[in-house]
Amino acid sequence: MKLTAQEIESLIGEGVPMAGLIGFQVVNVTAEHTVTRIPFNDNWIRPGGTISGPVIMALADASMYAIILAALGKAEMAVTSNININFLRRPDPADLYGKATLLRLGKRLAFCEVNLFTGSDRELVAHATGSYALPGKGFGAEME
Amino acid sequence: MKLTAQEIESLIGEGVPMAGLIGFQVVNVTAEHTVTRIPFNDNWIRPGGTISGPVIMALADASMYAIILAALGKAEMAVTSNININFLRRPDPADLYGKATLLRLGKRLAFCEVNLFTGSDRELVAHATGSYALPGKGFGAEME
Amino acid sequence: MKLTAQEIESLIGEGVPMAGLIGFQVVNVTAEHTVTRIPFNDNWIRPGGTISGPVIMALADASMYAIILAALGKAEMAVTSNININFLRRPDPADLYGKATLLRLGKRLAFCEVNLFTGSDRELVAHATGSYALPGKGFGAEME
Amino acid sequence: MKLTAQEIESLIGEGVPMAGLIGFQVVNVTAEHTVTRIPFNDNWIRPGGTISGPVIMALADASMYAIILAALGKAEMAVTSNININFLRRPDPADLYGKATLLRLGKRLAFCEVNLFTGSDRELVAHATGSYALPGKGFGAEME
Repeated sequence: MKLTAQEIESLIGEGVPMAGLIGFQVVNVTAEHTVTRIPFNDNWIRPGGTISGPVIMALADASMYAIILAALGKAEMAVTSNININFLRRPDPADLYGKATLLRLGKRLAFCEVNLFTGSDRELVAHATGSYALPGKGFGAEME
Repeated sequence: MKLTAQEIESLIGEGVPMAGLIGFQVVNVTAEHTVTRIPFNDNWIRPGGTISGPVIMALADASMYAIILAALGKAEMAVTSNININFLRRPDPADLYGKATLLRLGKRLAFCEVNLFTGSDRELVAHATGSYALPGKGFGAEME
Repeated sequence: MKLTAQEIESLIGEGVPMAGLIGFQVVNVTAEHTVTRIPFNDNWIRPGGTISGPVIMALADASMYAIILAALGKAEMAVTSNININFLRRPDPADLYGKATLLRLGKRLAFCEVNLFTGSDRELVAHATGSYALPGKGFGAEME
Repeated sequence: MKLTAQEIESLIGEGVPMAGLIGFQVVNVTAEHTVTRIPFNDNWIRPGGTISGPVIMALADASMYAIILAALGKAEMAVTSNININFLRRPDPADLYGKATLLRLGKRLAFCEVNLFTGSDRELVAHATGSYALPGKGFGAEME
Protein backbone atom coordinates (compact mmCIF):
# COMPACT_ATOMS: atom_id res chain seq x y z
CA MET A 1 0.00 0.00 0.00
CA LYS A 2 1.18 3.49 -0.77
CA LEU A 3 -0.50 5.06 2.27
CA THR A 4 -1.26 3.96 5.84
CA ALA A 5 -4.76 3.68 7.26
CA GLN A 6 -4.16 6.86 9.23
CA GLU A 7 -2.97 8.78 6.18
CA ILE A 8 -5.98 7.65 4.17
CA GLU A 9 -8.37 8.61 6.96
CA SER A 10 -6.82 12.08 7.18
CA LEU A 11 -6.94 12.63 3.41
CA ILE A 12 -10.59 11.64 3.19
CA GLY A 13 -11.56 13.50 6.37
CA GLU A 14 -10.00 16.70 5.04
CA GLY A 15 -11.02 16.27 1.44
CA VAL A 16 -14.64 15.16 1.87
CA PRO A 17 -16.13 17.16 4.73
CA MET A 18 -19.19 14.97 4.99
CA ALA A 19 -16.95 11.98 5.72
CA GLY A 20 -15.43 13.85 8.63
CA LEU A 21 -18.86 14.91 9.77
CA ILE A 22 -20.13 11.35 10.07
CA GLY A 23 -16.96 10.22 11.83
CA PHE A 24 -15.50 8.16 8.98
CA GLN A 25 -12.58 5.97 10.11
CA VAL A 26 -10.15 3.70 8.27
CA VAL A 27 -9.76 0.60 10.39
CA ASN A 28 -7.42 -1.55 8.35
CA VAL A 29 -5.58 -1.52 5.04
CA THR A 30 -4.03 -4.55 3.37
CA ALA A 31 -3.03 -5.41 -0.18
CA GLU A 32 -6.42 -7.09 -0.65
CA HIS A 33 -8.91 -4.78 0.99
CA THR A 34 -9.64 -1.83 3.24
CA VAL A 35 -11.99 -1.86 6.21
CA THR A 36 -13.68 1.40 7.12
CA ARG A 37 -16.15 2.34 9.86
CA ILE A 38 -18.73 4.91 10.89
CA PRO A 39 -19.30 4.87 14.66
CA PHE A 40 -22.93 4.60 15.66
CA ASN A 41 -24.62 7.96 16.17
CA ASP A 42 -28.28 8.63 16.93
CA ASN A 43 -28.28 11.37 14.33
CA TRP A 44 -28.27 8.89 11.47
CA ILE A 45 -31.38 7.01 12.52
CA ARG A 46 -34.41 7.11 10.25
CA PRO A 47 -38.05 6.02 10.83
CA GLY A 48 -38.01 2.39 11.83
CA GLY A 49 -34.88 2.79 13.97
CA THR A 50 -32.37 2.07 11.22
CA ILE A 51 -29.31 3.85 9.84
CA SER A 52 -30.43 6.13 7.01
CA GLY A 53 -29.57 5.38 3.39
CA PRO A 54 -27.39 8.46 2.78
CA VAL A 55 -25.04 7.42 5.61
CA ILE A 56 -24.67 3.96 4.10
CA MET A 57 -24.05 5.50 0.67
CA ALA A 58 -21.47 7.91 2.08
CA LEU A 59 -19.60 5.02 3.70
CA ALA A 60 -19.74 2.99 0.47
CA ASP A 61 -18.28 5.87 -1.53
CA ALA A 62 -15.60 6.70 1.05
CA SER A 63 -14.64 3.02 1.25
CA MET A 64 -14.05 2.91 -2.48
CA TYR A 65 -12.00 6.08 -2.30
CA ALA A 66 -9.96 4.55 0.55
CA ILE A 67 -8.95 1.48 -1.40
CA ILE A 68 -8.04 3.57 -4.44
CA LEU A 69 -5.86 5.81 -2.28
CA ALA A 70 -4.29 2.67 -0.80
CA ALA A 71 -3.46 1.38 -4.26
CA LEU A 72 -2.46 4.59 -6.02
CA GLY A 73 -1.21 6.93 -3.32
CA LYS A 74 -2.33 10.51 -3.10
CA ALA A 75 -4.80 10.51 -6.01
CA GLU A 76 -6.99 13.24 -4.64
CA MET A 77 -8.44 14.06 -8.01
CA ALA A 78 -9.99 10.66 -8.60
CA VAL A 79 -13.74 11.17 -8.87
CA THR A 80 -16.68 8.78 -8.58
CA SER A 81 -18.05 7.88 -12.00
CA ASN A 82 -20.79 5.42 -11.03
CA ILE A 83 -22.10 3.87 -7.84
CA ASN A 84 -24.78 1.23 -7.43
CA ILE A 85 -26.07 0.11 -4.04
CA ASN A 86 -28.44 -2.67 -3.03
CA PHE A 87 -29.95 -2.31 0.43
CA LEU A 88 -30.34 -5.81 1.82
CA ARG A 89 -31.39 -5.60 5.48
CA ARG A 90 -32.27 -2.97 8.02
CA PRO A 91 -29.02 -2.26 9.83
CA ASP A 92 -28.94 -2.62 13.58
CA PRO A 93 -28.27 0.58 15.54
CA ALA A 94 -24.55 -0.21 15.74
CA ASP A 95 -21.23 0.80 14.16
CA LEU A 96 -21.34 0.41 10.39
CA TYR A 97 -18.41 -1.18 8.53
CA GLY A 98 -17.42 -1.15 4.86
CA LYS A 99 -15.03 -3.74 3.46
CA ALA A 100 -13.82 -2.69 0.02
CA THR A 101 -12.01 -4.66 -2.65
CA LEU A 102 -10.70 -3.61 -6.05
CA LEU A 103 -12.37 -5.53 -8.86
CA ARG A 104 -10.13 -3.94 -11.47
CA LEU A 105 -7.55 -1.19 -11.40
CA GLY A 106 -7.27 0.14 -14.95
CA LYS A 107 -5.46 3.18 -16.24
CA ARG A 108 -8.55 5.30 -16.59
CA LEU A 109 -11.10 3.63 -14.35
CA ALA A 110 -10.97 1.71 -11.08
CA PHE A 111 -13.84 -0.65 -10.26
CA CYS A 112 -14.59 -1.48 -6.61
CA GLU A 113 -16.93 -3.59 -4.51
CA VAL A 114 -17.96 -2.83 -0.92
CA ASN A 115 -19.65 -5.14 1.57
CA LEU A 116 -21.42 -3.12 4.27
CA PHE A 117 -22.32 -4.69 7.62
CA THR A 118 -22.76 -3.73 11.27
CA GLY A 119 -20.41 -4.70 14.05
CA SER A 120 -23.17 -6.45 15.93
CA ASP A 121 -23.71 -9.44 13.67
CA ARG A 122 -21.58 -9.14 10.50
CA GLU A 123 -24.57 -9.86 8.24
CA LEU A 124 -24.55 -7.81 5.06
CA VAL A 125 -26.82 -4.77 5.29
CA ALA A 126 -25.89 -3.41 1.88
CA HIS A 127 -23.68 -4.16 -1.12
CA ALA A 128 -22.17 -1.57 -3.41
CA THR A 129 -20.18 -1.53 -6.62
CA GLY A 130 -18.82 1.47 -8.45
CA SER A 131 -16.17 3.03 -10.60
CA TYR A 132 -13.82 5.96 -10.13
CA ALA A 133 -12.32 7.98 -13.00
CA LEU A 134 -8.59 8.19 -12.34
CA PRO A 135 -6.41 11.24 -12.84
CA GLY A 136 -3.93 11.03 -15.70
CA LYS A 137 -2.67 12.75 -18.79
CA GLY A 138 -6.17 13.04 -20.09
CA PHE A 139 -7.63 13.79 -16.71
CA GLY A 140 -10.24 16.41 -16.44
CA ALA A 141 -11.62 15.50 -19.83
CA GLU A 142 -14.49 13.66 -18.31
CA MET A 143 -15.60 15.69 -15.38
CA GLU A 144 -14.72 19.27 -16.26
CA MET B 1 -50.63 14.88 -4.60
CA LYS B 2 -51.40 13.60 -1.14
CA LEU B 3 -49.00 16.00 0.59
CA THR B 4 -47.77 19.54 0.01
CA ALA B 5 -44.16 20.48 -0.67
CA GLN B 6 -43.91 21.82 2.87
CA GLU B 7 -45.34 18.68 4.43
CA ILE B 8 -42.94 16.50 2.45
CA GLU B 9 -39.97 18.66 3.42
CA SER B 10 -40.92 18.43 7.10
CA LEU B 11 -41.41 14.65 6.98
CA ILE B 12 -38.04 14.08 5.34
CA GLY B 13 -36.24 16.64 7.49
CA GLU B 14 -37.51 14.98 10.65
CA GLY B 15 -37.24 11.43 9.44
CA VAL B 16 -33.82 11.50 7.80
CA PRO B 17 -31.55 13.68 9.96
CA MET B 18 -28.85 13.91 7.32
CA ALA B 19 -31.34 15.53 4.94
CA GLY B 20 -32.02 18.22 7.54
CA LEU B 21 -28.31 18.59 8.13
CA ILE B 22 -27.56 19.40 4.50
CA GLY B 23 -30.49 21.80 4.28
CA PHE B 24 -32.74 19.67 2.07
CA GLN B 25 -35.71 21.62 0.66
CA VAL B 26 -38.73 20.63 -1.42
CA VAL B 27 -39.19 23.38 -4.01
CA ASN B 28 -42.14 22.16 -6.03
CA VAL B 29 -44.51 19.21 -6.23
CA THR B 30 -46.78 18.44 -9.17
CA ALA B 31 -48.50 15.31 -10.42
CA GLU B 32 -45.55 14.67 -12.75
CA HIS B 33 -42.49 15.45 -10.67
CA THR B 34 -40.95 16.93 -7.55
CA VAL B 35 -38.14 19.47 -7.51
CA THR B 36 -35.85 19.47 -4.49
CA ARG B 37 -32.81 21.55 -3.54
CA ILE B 38 -29.73 21.67 -1.35
CA PRO B 39 -28.51 25.25 -0.83
CA PHE B 40 -24.83 25.73 -1.57
CA ASN B 41 -22.61 25.32 1.47
CA ASP B 42 -18.81 25.37 1.59
CA ASN B 43 -18.87 22.31 3.82
CA TRP B 44 -19.76 20.04 0.92
CA ILE B 45 -16.82 20.97 -1.28
CA ARG B 46 -14.26 18.30 -2.12
CA PRO B 47 -10.78 18.52 -3.72
CA GLY B 48 -11.20 20.23 -7.07
CA GLY B 49 -13.78 22.68 -5.74
CA THR B 50 -16.82 20.54 -6.47
CA ILE B 51 -19.79 19.31 -4.43
CA SER B 52 -18.87 15.96 -2.91
CA GLY B 53 -20.45 12.73 -4.09
CA PRO B 54 -22.23 11.85 -0.83
CA VAL B 55 -24.17 15.13 -0.93
CA ILE B 56 -25.31 14.41 -4.48
CA MET B 57 -26.29 10.88 -3.47
CA ALA B 58 -28.20 12.15 -0.43
CA LEU B 59 -30.16 14.56 -2.61
CA ALA B 60 -30.90 11.82 -5.15
CA ASP B 61 -32.24 9.53 -2.44
CA ALA B 62 -34.26 12.27 -0.73
CA SER B 63 -35.72 13.33 -4.10
CA MET B 64 -36.96 9.80 -4.72
CA TYR B 65 -38.46 9.66 -1.25
CA ALA B 66 -40.15 13.04 -1.88
CA ILE B 67 -41.95 11.89 -5.02
CA ILE B 68 -43.07 8.66 -3.34
CA LEU B 69 -44.46 10.64 -0.41
CA ALA B 70 -46.19 12.94 -2.93
CA ALA B 71 -47.80 9.95 -4.63
CA LEU B 72 -48.62 7.76 -1.63
CA GLY B 73 -49.01 10.10 1.32
CA LYS B 74 -47.36 9.44 4.64
CA ALA B 75 -45.48 6.26 3.69
CA GLU B 76 -42.69 6.73 6.17
CA MET B 77 -41.77 3.11 6.15
CA ALA B 78 -40.86 2.96 2.48
CA VAL B 79 -37.19 2.04 2.26
CA THR B 80 -34.64 2.36 -0.52
CA SER B 81 -34.04 -0.99 -2.20
CA ASN B 82 -31.57 0.04 -4.93
CA ILE B 83 -29.96 3.24 -6.11
CA ASN B 84 -27.67 3.75 -9.11
CA ILE B 85 -25.97 7.08 -9.84
CA ASN B 86 -23.89 8.25 -12.78
CA PHE B 87 -21.75 11.32 -12.11
CA LEU B 88 -21.64 13.29 -15.34
CA ARG B 89 -19.93 16.63 -14.71
CA ARG B 90 -18.22 18.45 -11.88
CA PRO B 91 -20.97 20.54 -10.30
CA ASP B 92 -20.41 24.26 -10.00
CA PRO B 93 -20.25 25.61 -6.46
CA ALA B 94 -23.96 26.51 -6.52
CA ASP B 95 -27.31 25.29 -5.23
CA LEU B 96 -27.95 21.69 -6.25
CA TYR B 97 -31.37 20.63 -7.60
CA GLY B 98 -32.98 17.23 -8.01
CA LYS B 99 -35.94 16.73 -10.33
CA ALA B 100 -37.58 13.37 -9.69
CA THR B 101 -40.11 11.43 -11.73
CA LEU B 102 -41.84 8.12 -11.05
CA LEU B 103 -40.98 5.53 -13.68
CA ARG B 104 -43.39 3.02 -12.18
CA LEU B 105 -45.49 2.92 -9.04
CA GLY B 106 -46.19 -0.73 -8.34
CA LYS B 107 -47.74 -2.31 -5.27
CA ARG B 108 -44.49 -3.52 -3.82
CA LEU B 109 -41.83 -1.40 -5.51
CA ALA B 110 -41.68 2.17 -6.79
CA PHE B 111 -39.08 3.01 -9.47
CA CYS B 112 -37.83 6.59 -9.77
CA GLU B 113 -35.49 8.69 -11.89
CA VAL B 114 -33.75 11.87 -10.71
CA ASN B 115 -31.99 14.49 -12.84
CA LEU B 116 -29.48 16.45 -10.74
CA PHE B 117 -28.24 19.88 -11.84
CA THR B 118 -27.02 23.15 -10.37
CA GLY B 119 -28.98 26.38 -10.43
CA SER B 120 -26.19 28.14 -12.29
CA ASP B 121 -26.51 26.46 -15.67
CA ARG B 122 -29.08 23.65 -15.53
CA GLU B 123 -26.69 21.17 -17.16
CA LEU B 124 -26.98 17.68 -15.70
CA VAL B 125 -24.29 16.96 -13.12
CA ALA B 126 -25.61 13.53 -12.22
CA HIS B 127 -28.40 11.11 -13.06
CA ALA B 128 -29.91 8.58 -10.67
CA THR B 129 -32.40 5.77 -10.81
CA GLY B 130 -33.61 3.60 -7.99
CA SER B 131 -36.34 1.61 -6.35
CA TYR B 132 -38.11 1.83 -3.02
CA ALA B 133 -39.77 -1.12 -1.30
CA LEU B 134 -43.24 0.01 -0.30
CA PRO B 135 -44.99 -0.78 2.96
CA GLY B 136 -47.93 -3.14 2.74
CA LYS B 137 -49.43 -6.29 4.13
CA GLY B 138 -46.21 -8.12 3.58
CA PHE B 139 -44.09 -5.22 4.61
CA GLY B 140 -41.08 -5.89 6.69
CA ALA B 141 -40.50 -9.19 5.00
CA GLU B 142 -37.70 -7.75 2.95
CA MET B 143 -35.81 -5.48 5.23
CA GLU B 144 -36.26 -7.00 8.69
CA MET C 1 -25.55 12.86 -37.04
CA LYS C 2 -22.45 11.31 -38.54
CA LEU C 3 -24.23 8.17 -39.75
CA THR C 4 -27.69 7.33 -41.07
CA ALA C 5 -30.08 4.94 -39.36
CA GLN C 6 -29.31 2.35 -42.04
CA GLU C 7 -25.55 2.71 -41.63
CA ILE C 8 -25.85 2.33 -37.85
CA GLU C 9 -28.07 -0.73 -38.20
CA SER C 10 -25.57 -2.36 -40.56
CA LEU C 11 -22.59 -1.60 -38.31
CA ILE C 12 -24.28 -3.05 -35.25
CA GLY C 13 -25.74 -6.02 -37.11
CA GLU C 14 -22.29 -6.95 -38.47
CA GLY C 15 -20.36 -6.07 -35.34
CA VAL C 16 -22.57 -7.63 -32.69
CA PRO C 17 -23.90 -10.91 -34.06
CA MET C 18 -26.47 -11.30 -31.33
CA ALA C 19 -28.05 -8.01 -32.40
CA GLY C 20 -28.46 -9.38 -35.89
CA LEU C 21 -29.78 -12.61 -34.49
CA ILE C 22 -32.62 -10.92 -32.64
CA GLY C 23 -33.47 -8.75 -35.64
CA PHE C 24 -32.23 -5.44 -34.26
CA GLN C 25 -33.37 -2.44 -36.32
CA VAL C 26 -32.62 1.28 -36.17
CA VAL C 27 -35.91 3.07 -36.77
CA ASN C 28 -34.97 6.72 -36.47
CA VAL C 29 -31.96 8.90 -35.72
CA THR C 30 -32.11 12.58 -34.82
CA ALA C 31 -29.76 14.95 -33.03
CA GLU C 32 -31.62 14.25 -29.79
CA HIS C 33 -32.23 10.51 -29.79
CA THR C 34 -32.27 7.22 -31.62
CA VAL C 35 -35.20 4.84 -31.78
CA THR C 36 -34.43 1.16 -32.20
CA ARG C 37 -36.63 -1.93 -32.43
CA ILE C 38 -36.68 -5.69 -32.07
CA PRO C 39 -39.58 -7.24 -34.00
CA PHE C 40 -41.69 -9.60 -31.94
CA ASN C 41 -40.58 -13.22 -32.15
CA ASP C 42 -41.95 -16.20 -30.23
CA ASN C 43 -38.43 -17.32 -29.50
CA TRP C 44 -37.93 -14.58 -26.92
CA ILE C 45 -40.89 -15.49 -24.76
CA ARG C 46 -40.24 -16.69 -21.21
CA PRO C 47 -42.53 -18.31 -18.63
CA GLY C 48 -45.48 -15.99 -18.12
CA GLY C 49 -45.68 -15.07 -21.80
CA THR C 50 -43.32 -12.13 -21.64
CA ILE C 51 -40.20 -11.08 -23.56
CA SER C 52 -37.17 -12.45 -21.73
CA GLY C 53 -34.76 -10.21 -19.85
CA PRO C 54 -31.69 -10.90 -22.03
CA VAL C 55 -33.53 -9.64 -25.11
CA ILE C 56 -34.46 -6.42 -23.31
CA MET C 57 -30.87 -6.02 -22.11
CA ALA C 58 -29.51 -6.64 -25.61
CA LEU C 59 -31.80 -3.96 -27.03
CA ALA C 60 -30.80 -1.51 -24.27
CA ASP C 61 -27.11 -2.05 -24.99
CA ALA C 62 -27.52 -1.85 -28.77
CA SER C 63 -29.59 1.34 -28.39
CA MET C 64 -26.79 2.99 -26.44
CA TYR C 65 -24.29 1.90 -29.05
CA ALA C 66 -26.54 3.32 -31.78
CA ILE C 67 -26.71 6.79 -30.29
CA ILE C 68 -22.94 6.83 -29.72
CA LEU C 69 -22.36 5.84 -33.34
CA ALA C 70 -24.80 8.59 -34.38
CA ALA C 71 -22.84 11.15 -32.38
CA LEU C 72 -19.28 10.01 -33.04
CA GLY C 73 -19.34 8.23 -36.38
CA LYS C 74 -17.68 4.89 -36.86
CA ALA C 75 -16.45 4.34 -33.29
CA GLU C 76 -16.51 0.59 -33.46
CA MET C 77 -14.11 0.21 -30.62
CA ALA C 78 -16.30 1.89 -28.04
CA VAL C 79 -17.07 -0.69 -25.36
CA THR C 80 -19.75 -0.88 -22.69
CA SER C 81 -18.35 0.04 -19.30
CA ASN C 82 -21.48 -0.17 -17.14
CA ILE C 83 -25.14 -0.91 -17.70
CA ASN C 84 -27.97 -0.77 -15.17
CA ILE C 85 -31.52 -1.86 -16.01
CA ASN C 86 -34.73 -1.65 -14.04
CA PHE C 87 -37.50 -3.96 -15.24
CA LEU C 88 -40.77 -2.13 -14.69
CA ARG C 89 -43.61 -4.12 -16.27
CA ARG C 90 -44.10 -7.38 -18.08
CA PRO C 91 -43.84 -6.50 -21.76
CA ASP C 92 -46.71 -7.43 -24.01
CA PRO C 93 -45.92 -9.96 -26.74
CA ALA C 94 -45.26 -7.16 -29.27
CA ASP C 95 -42.40 -5.33 -30.99
CA LEU C 96 -39.98 -3.89 -28.44
CA TYR C 97 -38.64 -0.35 -28.86
CA GLY C 98 -35.66 1.45 -27.29
CA LYS C 99 -35.44 5.23 -27.29
CA ALA C 100 -31.94 6.33 -26.36
CA THR C 101 -30.63 9.74 -25.35
CA LEU C 102 -27.11 10.88 -24.51
CA LEU C 103 -26.87 12.16 -20.93
CA ARG C 104 -23.26 13.23 -21.41
CA LEU C 105 -20.74 12.83 -24.20
CA GLY C 106 -17.30 13.21 -22.61
CA LYS C 107 -13.89 12.54 -24.09
CA ARG C 108 -13.40 9.24 -22.36
CA LEU C 109 -16.90 8.14 -21.39
CA ALA C 110 -20.36 8.54 -22.91
CA PHE C 111 -23.38 8.21 -20.60
CA CYS C 112 -26.74 7.16 -22.07
CA GLU C 113 -30.32 6.56 -21.03
CA VAL C 114 -32.77 4.21 -22.76
CA ASN C 115 -36.54 4.03 -22.37
CA LEU C 116 -37.83 0.61 -23.44
CA PHE C 117 -41.47 0.08 -24.38
CA THR C 118 -43.63 -2.08 -26.63
CA GLY C 119 -45.39 -0.85 -29.73
CA SER C 120 -48.76 -1.91 -28.35
CA ASP C 121 -49.17 0.65 -25.60
CA ARG C 122 -46.02 2.78 -25.24
CA GLU C 123 -45.88 2.22 -21.47
CA LEU C 124 -42.34 1.79 -20.18
CA VAL C 125 -41.41 -1.86 -19.69
CA ALA C 126 -37.83 -1.15 -18.66
CA HIS C 127 -35.41 1.73 -18.16
CA ALA C 128 -31.66 1.53 -18.63
CA THR C 129 -28.67 3.77 -18.07
CA GLY C 130 -25.07 3.05 -18.86
CA SER C 131 -21.67 4.24 -19.93
CA TYR C 132 -19.40 3.42 -22.85
CA ALA C 133 -15.62 3.84 -22.78
CA LEU C 134 -14.67 5.74 -25.91
CA PRO C 135 -11.68 5.05 -28.12
CA GLY C 136 -8.92 7.65 -28.01
CA LYS C 137 -5.23 8.19 -27.50
CA GLY C 138 -5.34 6.22 -24.30
CA PHE C 139 -7.77 3.69 -25.66
CA GLY C 140 -7.27 0.11 -24.81
CA ALA C 141 -5.87 1.01 -21.43
CA GLU C 142 -9.08 0.08 -19.74
CA MET C 143 -10.27 -3.01 -21.47
CA GLU C 144 -7.10 -4.73 -22.67
CA MET D 1 -30.44 -27.35 -2.97
CA LYS D 2 -33.95 -28.05 -4.16
CA LEU D 3 -32.89 -28.87 -7.73
CA THR D 4 -29.89 -30.49 -9.40
CA ALA D 5 -27.60 -28.71 -11.85
CA GLN D 6 -29.20 -30.69 -14.67
CA GLU D 7 -32.73 -29.81 -13.60
CA ILE D 8 -31.83 -26.11 -13.37
CA GLU D 9 -30.19 -26.18 -16.80
CA SER D 10 -33.28 -27.78 -18.32
CA LEU D 11 -35.66 -25.34 -16.68
CA ILE D 12 -33.70 -22.32 -17.87
CA GLY D 13 -33.03 -23.76 -21.33
CA GLU D 14 -36.76 -24.38 -21.84
CA GLY D 15 -37.97 -21.25 -20.13
CA VAL D 16 -35.58 -18.70 -21.57
CA PRO D 17 -35.02 -19.57 -25.21
CA MET D 18 -32.09 -17.21 -25.57
CA ALA D 19 -30.25 -19.12 -22.85
CA GLY D 20 -30.67 -22.31 -24.85
CA LEU D 21 -29.60 -20.51 -27.99
CA ILE D 22 -26.27 -19.46 -26.54
CA GLY D 23 -25.64 -22.91 -25.09
CA PHE D 24 -26.13 -22.03 -21.42
CA GLN D 25 -24.94 -24.79 -19.06
CA VAL D 26 -25.10 -25.27 -15.30
CA VAL D 27 -21.73 -26.68 -14.25
CA ASN D 28 -22.06 -26.95 -10.51
CA VAL D 29 -24.54 -26.22 -7.73
CA THR D 30 -23.69 -26.10 -4.04
CA ALA D 31 -25.31 -24.48 -1.02
CA GLU D 32 -23.04 -21.45 -1.47
CA HIS D 33 -22.99 -20.82 -5.19
CA THR D 34 -23.78 -21.94 -8.71
CA VAL D 35 -21.29 -22.07 -11.56
CA THR D 36 -22.66 -21.64 -15.07
CA ARG D 37 -21.00 -21.61 -18.50
CA ILE D 38 -21.45 -20.52 -22.09
CA PRO D 39 -19.18 -22.51 -24.43
CA PHE D 40 -17.11 -20.36 -26.74
CA ASN D 41 -18.76 -19.69 -30.08
CA ASP D 42 -17.52 -17.45 -32.89
CA ASN D 43 -21.01 -16.00 -33.22
CA TRP D 44 -20.63 -13.96 -30.04
CA ILE D 45 -17.49 -12.12 -31.08
CA ARG D 46 -17.68 -8.34 -31.53
CA PRO D 47 -15.22 -5.85 -33.06
CA GLY D 48 -11.92 -6.25 -31.24
CA GLY D 49 -12.26 -10.03 -31.02
CA THR D 50 -14.07 -10.12 -27.73
CA ILE D 51 -17.30 -11.72 -26.48
CA SER D 52 -20.12 -9.22 -26.98
CA GLY D 53 -21.83 -7.49 -24.06
CA PRO D 54 -25.29 -9.01 -24.55
CA VAL D 55 -23.85 -12.53 -24.18
CA ILE D 56 -22.17 -11.56 -20.92
CA MET D 57 -25.39 -9.95 -19.70
CA ALA D 58 -27.43 -13.01 -20.66
CA LEU D 59 -25.06 -15.24 -18.69
CA ALA D 60 -25.19 -12.89 -15.68
CA ASP D 61 -28.98 -12.95 -15.67
CA ALA D 62 -29.22 -16.72 -16.19
CA SER D 63 -26.67 -17.29 -13.41
CA MET D 64 -28.80 -15.30 -10.97
CA TYR D 65 -31.87 -17.26 -12.04
CA ALA D 66 -29.94 -20.51 -11.53
CA ILE D 67 -29.02 -19.77 -7.93
CA ILE D 68 -32.57 -18.67 -7.13
CA LEU D 69 -33.92 -21.91 -8.59
CA ALA D 70 -31.32 -23.80 -6.55
CA ALA D 71 -32.50 -22.09 -3.37
CA LEU D 72 -36.25 -22.00 -3.95
CA GLY D 73 -37.02 -24.88 -6.27
CA LYS D 74 -39.23 -24.47 -9.29
CA ALA D 75 -39.87 -20.71 -8.99
CA GLU D 76 -40.42 -20.13 -12.68
CA MET D 77 -42.31 -16.96 -12.12
CA ALA D 78 -39.46 -15.10 -10.45
CA VAL D 79 -38.61 -12.11 -12.64
CA THR D 80 -35.57 -9.88 -12.84
CA SER D 81 -36.22 -6.56 -11.13
CA ASN D 82 -32.81 -4.89 -11.51
CA ILE D 83 -29.45 -5.82 -12.98
CA ASN D 84 -26.23 -3.81 -12.91
CA ILE D 85 -23.08 -4.93 -14.74
CA ASN D 86 -19.57 -3.54 -14.77
CA PHE D 87 -17.43 -4.66 -17.71
CA LEU D 88 -13.88 -4.96 -16.42
CA ARG D 89 -11.68 -6.52 -19.12
CA ARG D 90 -11.99 -7.71 -22.68
CA PRO D 91 -12.77 -11.39 -22.39
CA ASP D 92 -10.51 -13.83 -24.17
CA PRO D 93 -12.14 -15.87 -26.92
CA ALA D 94 -12.81 -18.76 -24.55
CA ASP D 95 -15.63 -20.37 -22.56
CA LEU D 96 -17.32 -17.84 -20.31
CA TYR D 97 -18.20 -18.73 -16.69
CA GLY D 98 -20.55 -17.14 -14.18
CA LYS D 99 -20.20 -17.83 -10.47
CA ALA D 100 -23.29 -16.62 -8.62
CA THR D 101 -23.89 -16.14 -4.91
CA LEU D 102 -27.00 -15.02 -3.04
CA LEU D 103 -26.42 -11.78 -1.16
CA ARG D 104 -29.86 -11.92 0.44
CA LEU D 105 -32.86 -14.18 0.01
CA GLY D 106 -35.86 -12.21 1.26
CA LYS D 107 -39.53 -13.02 0.98
CA ARG D 108 -40.20 -10.61 -1.85
CA LEU D 109 -36.79 -9.97 -3.38
CA ALA D 110 -33.62 -12.03 -3.85
CA PHE D 111 -30.33 -10.17 -4.31
CA CYS D 112 -27.48 -11.87 -6.17
CA GLU D 113 -23.89 -11.27 -7.21
CA VAL D 114 -22.17 -12.86 -10.22
CA ASN D 115 -18.46 -12.99 -11.00
CA LEU D 116 -17.89 -13.55 -14.72
CA PHE D 117 -14.58 -14.88 -16.04
CA THR D 118 -13.19 -16.97 -18.87
CA GLY D 119 -11.84 -20.47 -18.49
CA SER D 120 -8.48 -19.43 -19.89
CA ASP D 121 -7.22 -17.31 -17.01
CA ARG D 122 -9.92 -16.91 -14.34
CA GLU D 123 -9.48 -13.12 -14.22
CA LEU D 124 -12.76 -11.28 -13.81
CA VAL D 125 -14.09 -9.95 -17.10
CA ALA D 126 -17.31 -8.57 -15.62
CA HIS D 127 -19.14 -8.29 -12.32
CA ALA D 128 -22.91 -8.16 -11.92
CA THR D 129 -25.39 -7.62 -9.12
CA GLY D 130 -29.15 -7.72 -9.33
CA SER D 131 -32.46 -8.49 -7.75
CA TYR D 132 -35.31 -10.82 -8.64
CA ALA D 133 -38.92 -10.28 -7.56
CA LEU D 134 -40.10 -13.55 -6.07
CA PRO D 135 -43.51 -15.13 -6.58
CA GLY D 136 -45.77 -15.19 -3.55
CA LYS D 137 -49.19 -14.33 -2.26
CA GLY D 138 -48.85 -10.84 -3.63
CA PHE D 139 -47.11 -12.01 -6.75
CA GLY D 140 -47.98 -10.37 -9.97
CA ALA D 141 -48.61 -7.07 -8.24
CA GLU D 142 -45.33 -5.69 -9.48
CA MET D 143 -44.90 -6.96 -12.98
CA GLU D 144 -48.41 -7.47 -14.31
